[in-house]
Amino acid sequence: MSKQVPVGVSARHIHLSEEHVRILFGEGASLTEMKPLSQPGQFAANETVAVVGPKGSFGKVRILGPVRKRTQLEISRTDAFALGVNAPVRESGDIAGSAGITIQGPAGEVVIEEGVIVAARHIHFHTSDAERFGVADKQKLRVRVGGERGVVFENVIARVHETYALDMHIDTDEANAAGVKTGDMAEIVE
Amino acid sequence: MSKQVPVGVSARHIHLSEEHVRILFGEGASLTEMKPLSQPGQFAANETVAVVGPKGSFGKVRILGPVRKRTQLEISRTDAFALGVNAPVRESGDIAGSAGITIQGPAGEVVIEEGVIVAARHIHFHTSDAERFGVADKQKLRVRVGGERGVVFENVIARVHETYALDMHIDTDEANAAGVKTGDMAEIVE
Repeated sequence: MSKQVPVGVSARHIHLSEEHVRILFGEGASLTEMKPLSQPGQFAANETVAVVGPKGSFGKVRILGPVRKRTQLEISRTDAFALGVNAPVRESGDIAGSAGITIQGPAGEVVIEEGVIVAARHIHFHTSDAERFGVADKQKLRVRVGGERGVVFENVIARVHETYALDMHIDTDEANAAGVKTGDMAEIVE
Repeated sequence: MSKQVPVGVSARHIHLSEEHVRILFGEGASLTEMKPLSQPGQFAANETVAVVGPKGSFGKVRILGPVRKRTQLEISRTDAFALGVNAPVRESGDIAGSAGITIQGPAGEVVIEEGVIVAARHIHFHTSDAERFGVADKQKLRVRVGGERGVVFENVIARVHETYALDMHIDTDEANAAGVKTGDMAEIVE
C-alpha cells in the first residue's frame, strides 16, 4: 500500500499565552480568526507581532490561535541564524531550556526566557489514518518528498489523535531543501 | 566500504566576469584573495557586492574568485523568495533562461538578465576518490547526512576531475534542514 500524506509547510509563527495577548495587544484584546488551519480548531489570526533577537528581527510574524498555556515561537534554523538565537529542534510544547526572544505588539512588549524552537518535523494522523497505515503515536518514520531535489526525511515523528487531520508539517528550510510546497504529497517509506 | 565525504555548506555567493569586476569595482580593479576554498585555485575574495531583486536585497554578498566567463549568483530558495526571483535549480555554469538580478558595487551597477541559480547539490571527487568509491562523472547519488535531523539527499551529482578535492556542496537550506555544518561527514548510500 502506498502511504501518501499531504505536506504542509510551516512558515515562522508564534503561539501566545492569554497573558501575553493582553500585554501585547491591550486589556480586553483577543485573537481574531483570519483563516482556519489544517488541524481542526486551529487558525491563523489577523494579528501579528514583531520578534527581536540579538542579531536581527522579523516584523509581522503571524500568530496562530487559539491561545496556549505558554508562548512558543517556531522558526527555521535559517531564521535562528538571522535572529542570532540558538533555538533547539523540539517537539511543540517541549520548550524547557530553549531560546529566548523579545516580542513586540502594538500595546506592549514581552521578553521570554524560553519558548523559541525549531519544530521537529512530524505528521499528524487521525486515529483512523494511523490504523490504516499501521503507525503508532510517537513512532519515528522515514518519509520521501520532492522531485529533482528529492529527499528522504528521517526521524519524522508520528502524532496520532482523534482530533488530528492527516498532514505532514515541515519548516521552510526543509521545504526549500526538498523543493516542495504546501499541498505536495509525501510518502512514508518505512 | 564506508563512503564518507566531508560536507561544505555554501552560503549565497557570486562569481563575476572580468567585465563586471571592471564595472562594479572600477577600471584596473581585480579580485583580491581573502582565503582559499576547498577546491584548488578557488578563493573567497575580500570584495563583496550588493544584489537587489524586486522584493528584497542582500548587502555584502561574497565574491568567489577567480573571475569566470559569465557572472553567476548562487542563492538558496529561501534567498530567492526574499529577493523575489524565480531561480531554478541548476548545475554551475548552466544559466540559460535562469533568473536576472541587479548587482551593485562601489564603482557601478550591473543588471544581468540571467545567471541567478540555486546550485544543484553535488560532490567534487578527485579522479582517485571516484575510482576508490566506484563513482562515475555525472552519476546521481543518494547521500545520508545529519543526526536528529537526518536526511538522505537524492540526485546528488558526482563531478569528477583531477583538479577537484573531495567535498560535498550543499546550500544553507539543505544544511539547515539536515542540521549539518561545514566539516561534518556525509555518507554515500548508493
